[in-house]
Amino acid sequence: MRLFAVVLLLTAATASAQQPTPSAPPAIPTPADAIAAAKADDWADIDPADLMLFDFDGGRRVVIQLAPDFAPDHIGNIKLIARTGHWKSATIYRVADNWVTQWGAGEDEQERSPPLPKGVKERPDEEYSRTATGLTLLPSGSVDPYAQMTAFASNWPVAVHRDGRVNLAFCYGTVGVARGPAPDTGSGSELFAIIGTPARRLDRNFAAVGRVISGIEHLSALPRGRAPLGFYDKEQAKIPLRSVRVGSDLAPAQRPKYQVMKQTSAAFARYLELASHRRDYGYGYGYGSDGAALCAIPVPIRPKP
Amino acid sequence: MRLFAVVLLLTAATASAQQPTPSAPPAIPTPADAIAAAKADDWADIDPADLMLFDFDGGRRVVIQLAPDFAPDHIGNIKLIARTGHWKSATIYRVADNWVTQWGAGEDEQERSPPLPKGVKERPDEEYSRTATGLTLLPSGSVDPYAQMTAFASNWPVAVHRDGRVNLAFCYGTVGVARGPAPDTGSGSELFAIIGTPARRLDRNFAAVGRVISGIEHLSALPRGRAPLGFYDKEQAKIPLRSVRVGSDLAPAQRPKYQVMKQTSAAFARYLELASHRRDYGYGYGYGSDGAALCAIPVPIRPKP
Repeated sequence: MRLFAVVLLLTAATASAQQPTPSAPPAIPTPADAIAAAKADDWADIDPADLMLFDFDGGRRVVIQLAPDFAPDHIGNIKLIARTGHWKSATIYRVADNWVTQWGAGEDEQERSPPLPKGVKERPDEEYSRTATGLTLLPSGSVDPYAQMTAFASNWPVAVHRDGRVNLAFCYGTVGVARGPAPDTGSGSELFAIIGTPARRLDRNFAAVGRVISGIEHLSALPRGRAPLGFYDKEQAKIPLRSVRVGSDLAPAQRPKYQVMKQTSAAFARYLELASHRRDYGYGYGYGSDGAALCAIPVPIRPKP
Repeated sequence: MRLFAVVLLLTAATASAQQPTPSAPPAIPTPADAIAAAKADDWADIDPADLMLFDFDGGRRVVIQLAPDFAPDHIGNIKLIARTGHWKSATIYRVADNWVTQWGAGEDEQERSPPLPKGVKERPDEEYSRTATGLTLLPSGSVDPYAQMTAFASNWPVAVHRDGRVNLAFCYGTVGVARGPAPDTGSGSELFAIIGTPARRLDRNFAAVGRVISGIEHLSALPRGRAPLGFYDKEQAKIPLRSVRVGSDLAPAQRPKYQVMKQTSAAFARYLELASHRRDYGYGYGYGSDGAALCAIPVPIRPKP
């Protein structure tokens, strides 16, 4: 019996290998094929100033790409916090299944933490949405329950609203700023990442500041918190943050090097089209799958070759 | 600083406790309030014949509710398999981040497993969709990229298609039948559960047979597989299935007892309405959140009080 193996990463090479005879039907291209076929110019280097390396205890490295086009004040705060020692006692202290993993200087850690560094805006403006420019729309049919339409802007997934503004959507792996009930209470000293169903109801209500581009499993596969709301209880070992660095602060040879597929590239257009009309592998015999949710089409990211 | 604590389970009691003064604004009701306010008659007992207890190594109990209205032949197979020893060497052998956890008698286990029991349909019909009866629609605005509309049927989330048929949607926790590329190759001896972004592209292409109603963290928090497609590699310890039972096979006092909120109840209507228009807690100061994706509104399930 063949194993269930429908994933985005099934490659064209694999598909070809399965169809050795001339009379076999042509391999149906997959979104992964579009990624594999992309040319060097279809990719943009990610500025190392927009990359952060979070090294948690136990060799758990999480790389986050920041989105300064969307939340510059919050991101300014986060970089200041990372550079000035406020997070020296920071931990992962909350893992709520199908919701978020959260870390930083939580209530318990604050007492042992240096104060927020000078220059941090303790109550930054909301930065929940911005004006819409340079949109790449999803193929027709990709409607959205939360917004007028969905698109990509600055190589990020966005929801487009009636007021003409867009927000960075809270998809799996999106990083947001934790806060209290009032909108201006999140400095950036506590962050969360989505580890389940897209948390789209956070759209325009919380500041999205980036996405995990490597090491998400170090956040998503952690033991779930047993206290209410998924906080770790007293018997659960919080996971210390050992080191945090902004990519551009490293020596040039040490800097993390990643690329994002340009939303304006031909490769991305092909990727979007294929992701919205699946007929490959396990989809080809039945109804196939037409349409795609914004969060089901992650923007391709890769280590720079 | 207050911690980020926006979750479905924030209760009315908590909200009230936070607003002690008469001049405080009234607490904004949450979906959890609708669940808490539901009356006994708003809940239906789940037939123990539709419950399966999977006990994996290490005390990991996963309770699955089967959906016989949607995939009776596959479910007949699964119960036969569970009762006849085919799974005696079964393991969890695949954990693909943001995709699926998969278990059963995989390629490695098949050699050590008894053959599929007599009576199992080795190539059952697809059972990917059914006729639509008794739909409860989501509030207006809850459009869907994958179907004409979204609804609930038989207390399950469904996508409704132009041909008038519905399918059980692949949301977080939905259990499906693993198979090879051809649609009739999944007997039910290998199952998977969604552990990330809803896998809606599987809708109408794979057989959905149920949902995890307790113990999802025993599937979602496992180490991710390091081999291609998230399969466990030779150095990773697969997790043995120690016991599997159908609820109705247990002595009456031992049977699992759960209830599902009736989609036709007033409580469910209120729950849907509140889930589609969030203004409570962290949502109340900003834009709020209007609309909701089908998979962001889990049907309430509880242990029978």
